Amino acid sequence: MPQSWFVYHTSEDPFAYPVGTGTLKLRLFTQAGQQLSCTVIHSDRYDSPGQEVPLQMDRIGSAGIYEIHEAIIQTSTRRSRYLFHIANAAGQYIWYGERGASENRERAGSFQYAYLHHSEALKLPLWSQDAVTYQIYPSSYNGGTLKGITDKIPYLQQLGVNTIYMTPVFESPSEHKYNTSDYYKIDPAFGDVDGLKTLVREAHRHGIRVILDAVFNHSGDQFFAFKDVMEKGEQSPYKDWFFIRSFPVTQTPAPNYETFAKAEAHMPKLNMDHPETADYMIGVAKYWIRETEIDGWRLDVANEVNPAFWSRFRQELKSEFPEILLIGEIMHASGPWLRGDQFDGGMNYVLRDAVLEFFAEQSTGPDRFMEQVLHQEALYNDQANSAMFQLIGSHDTLRFLTACKEGGRGWDRESTAIQRMRLAVFFQMTYIGIPMIYYGDEVGMEGATDPHCRKAMVWQEQAQNTALLKWYQELIFLRKSCDILRKGKFRPWFTDEVRNVFGYTRGMDQEKIGLIINNSPNAYELELNVYRSDKNLLTDLLSGATFKNNNKLIVSIEPFGCLMLY
Amino acid sequence: MPQSWFVYHTSEDPFAYPVGTGTLKLRLFTQAGQQLSCTVIHSDRYDSPGQEVPLQMDRIGSAGIYEIHEAIIQTSTRRSRYLFHIANAAGQYIWYGERGASENRERAGSFQYAYLHHSEALKLPLWSQDAVTYQIYPSSYNGGTLKGITDKIPYLQQLGVNTIYMTPVFESPSEHKYNTSDYYKIDPAFGDVDGLKTLVREAHRHGIRVILDAVFNHSGDQFFAFKDVMEKGEQSPYKDWFFIRSFPVTQTPAPNYETFAKAEAHMPKLNMDHPETADYMIGVAKYWIRETEIDGWRLDVANEVNPAFWSRFRQELKSEFPEILLIGEIMHASGPWLRGDQFDGGMNYVLRDAVLEFFAEQSTGPDRFMEQVLHQEALYNDQANSAMFQLIGSHDTLRFLTACKEGGRGWDRESTAIQRMRLAVFFQMTYIGIPMIYYGDEVGMEGATDPHCRKAMVWQEQAQNTALLKWYQELIFLRKSCDILRKGKFRPWFTDEVRNVFGYTRGMDQEKIGLIINNSPNAYELELNVYRSDKNLLTDLLSGATFKNNNKLIVSIEPFGCLMLY
Repeated sequence: MPQSWFVYHTSEDPFAYPVGTGTLKLRLFTQAGQQLSCTVIHSDRYDSPGQEVPLQMDRIGSAGIYEIHEAIIQTSTRRSRYLFHIANAAGQYIWYGERGASENRERAGSFQYAYLHHSEALKLPLWSQDAVTYQIYPSSYNGGTLKGITDKIPYLQQLGVNTIYMTPVFESPSEHKYNTSDYYKIDPAFGDVDGLKTLVREAHRHGIRVILDAVFNHSGDQFFAFKDVMEKGEQSPYKDWFFIRSFPVTQTPAPNYETFAKAEAHMPKLNMDHPETADYMIGVAKYWIRETEIDGWRLDVANEVNPAFWSRFRQELKSEFPEILLIGEIMHASGPWLRGDQFDGGMNYVLRDAVLEFFAEQSTGPDRFMEQVLHQEALYNDQANSAMFQLIGSHDTLRFLTACKEGGRGWDRESTAIQRMRLAVFFQMTYIGIPMIYYGDEVGMEGATDPHCRKAMVWQEQAQNTALLKWYQELIFLRKSCDILRKGKFRPWFTDEVRNVFGYTRGMDQEKIGLIINNSPNAYELELNVYRSDKNLLTDLLSGATFKNNNKLIVSIEPFGCLMLY
Repeated sequence: MPQSWFVYHTSEDPFAYPVGTGTLKLRLFTQAGQQLSCTVIHSDRYDSPGQEVPLQMDRIGSAGIYEIHEAIIQTSTRRSRYLFHIANAAGQYIWYGERGASENRERAGSFQYAYLHHSEALKLPLWSQDAVTYQIYPSSYNGGTLKGITDKIPYLQQLGVNTIYMTPVFESPSEHKYNTSDYYKIDPAFGDVDGLKTLVREAHRHGIRVILDAVFNHSGDQFFAFKDVMEKGEQSPYKDWFFIRSFPVTQTPAPNYETFAKAEAHMPKLNMDHPETADYMIGVAKYWIRETEIDGWRLDVANEVNPAFWSRFRQELKSEFPEILLIGEIMHASGPWLRGDQFDGGMNYVLRDAVLEFFAEQSTGPDRFMEQVLHQEALYNDQANSAMFQLIGSHDTLRFLTACKEGGRGWDRESTAIQRMRLAVFFQMTYIGIPMIYYGDEVGMEGATDPHCRKAMVWQEQAQNTALLKWYQELIFLRKSCDILRKGKFRPWFTDEVRNVFGYTRGMDQEKIGLIINNSPNAYELELNVYRSDKNLLTDLLSGATFKNNNKLIVSIEPFGCLMLY
């Protein structure tokens, strides 16, 4: 066996998962830098050996040290037994199955996907695949009230977004409101339940969905249950709602109970293993949906709450409200939470890191950027990928434009900052998932990390970057009017490390759109392999420019320019 | 970056899992055949970079194309952020984190284990770590009755086993009873509920636990609910208990409903997504525990039942009966079912395949055998590994002695069959998990696959291989009297491919037992590296022979012999 071969697969999400009735998607990792041809051989698990059908796998691309191969297999019996045949150009090969890799097929064994359950094909709310989200920090948006936000719905409609996500609006003594005092009450500074009802009704009337933010990892220390424990100690019926190390409860010099982060005394960690606490919070989540008809929940610090709670949370919410969208805040690789039993999607900070490096800092080239994009995509199943909030900034990061100004190469980094931000937004709006715009980014707001990224929204037109706003509008319009940009498969096309240019495609059925990004200050004429043999001319959907596509595809691209070829 | 490096890790079971309060076990795969030094650098997720603690990882051994490295890290805050530093002998290294592998630490990112939940440290029944199980096929054991089995409890006690697992005993028209007619009734041929109560009571009185077999993937076609659907068609209140493709229900020429395996008309597949069906079967499982005080369930075709059902099944059973043992029948890699939310352990046919190849067929050498042992161990977390039913045969396979006679190398394969079986049993009884003996194997019964492996138990002493029986008794006795053999860590020691000899150790606290197996017809004197520097003399616990352990350890071993050095 060729010593240097290394492969990885396991018969479970995200390496094997149902994508439809009797349809199983398989992923295989091989070592990068080899030209391997991978085939999957499959049959029903109950078929005798010899009845397997071979299927050539797609090589998706490199994700750093490994290359990704994918195949979609059909099984009318819902059961699959399969193994991989992996060959190099020299004709050497290995078989790879449940028992490992071997030149001997028997010794490799087979992988088994026991049964594709009827209930297992992962379902997303129908509307989420068309969503473009806009994050609002209510204190800073428009007068710091729900009414102020409601007043700006026409603006949001003009921008083109169709989903609002608001950070917490429930009663809390802080500005950010992540330390909830009363889960059943709108913070009086923001308004009241009627204000929220009006906001949701007006938003819906304008085709805009509304997602609220819930904090179930911890409460605020003014939450009635915690106050009761502070007061009554071990006698409190709520003592098991938290993790109290000793009684009486003390907050200084250090809390004697578990908290969010490091000893944040005003944020006592909730014990979601305790059935009463879990019941209470599920009640909260259902109440606001029923009462105000919101369309989804974003769940704060979701990664530190017991996954068993989220399973129950999902089951209970989705059975009553099948179209509710559930997004978990997990700031790192989120696989364990996105297998179909907890959240629909997450806040994709992992992708943001790659976007930041490449466009804002310019500290990496197109090869690494594309690898990172594929790497994070390979962490998840297709359904989760299509429900990720694809963000380039939020209330927890510095603003993207600020990152562009601080980062970037050369003396002109300030002057190219907007151009690089435009490219990042172009990528965001032409990539898979749910683009999420952080309020104000669209008009060129700047700011370092909290509190500077949470400043008041700029409404005076003269202080807004209206060209940038137009760019957002144009891209959102194109995304919304073009199915392929929302639902098409993402595939790397080419990378040109020397020129700092790369291309990718989005494809659906027989249609494809080619996208090219020039992350350099130079104009180029690029000679590319012919793109699609049945099209002699390609049009850039942004500028209307046309390019010949005979034998070669020759395109010209501006400094920090981008093309959307159709 | 050295081109040929490939590594794999993900922050979830079985690559990262809690093994105790605030204790996280990490596994890392690297490419086999390299001498790598792996270190994990870890801290609290909320610590600023720079506060990480380095910890050298243990190299466990090769599992085919990859090598396994492990480390156990402590986190008092229950949160961990970590990354790996992997260096070769030439001083080249990579960092490996959530964003991939890189020579640049920042670019690798970090893995995050968000939070080790209080409820997450996987719990097993206390008794299971000491269990030695004996599988009984009731029709064939002693008169084909529960009373017959009860009468043989003294025999079982003498053999030394402390757990019985019986294939199904509920009403069914077949001999094997895997097509249940009445889940609430003992098959009249076997006896009645009082007979089972007596069996369990007598077993308990002799320190023996009892595990029953439940079939929830499908029922028999005589099950009342299916009969009702056959009779009333779409009007039946039970129509959603099954997967009926069209009405009326027909069984010939082919069933128009989903079945077990391929169109087994008498085994209609149960719809366990349907809450009523799930409720009914959970009721069945609880009823028999309450009524007869059995100690566990083995769940048939567990891999084809919806995992969501098993999660609920586990939660409901374990909350009422925390000491119940749940074993899933999954005949292939069982990871997805053994993450702590479904079964305690599985029927380990994957290990059996390796044992069969090496001892019975002699088609592989010690290198591959040890690789396969480590490979399957690396599929699971420690808790699951310690609850696997380690079998060398069952009612679904040919008997091990028959495999030894049919397999093996050379003209003398028949005459060495018993010797090779003895070695396999030696391995089984000195390995981790729960050894499971298939009835009759211990007295040298032979038989090809079903029905030949299900013949009547041989009770006449002159027809029994009493030497083999003694061997079982001796090994079971040693296992039961020696904590290290039950609870100690398994580690490869050496393999000698040329001589067909290998060694492994079991270790616990500061104590270790060294085990050596000679799978060849030759006697050897082996020169090994000194085993433990503080012991000048080692004793073979089987024969009492002593071996010098100065500078070198020199041992002599018989043809097909084995040593247990202490």
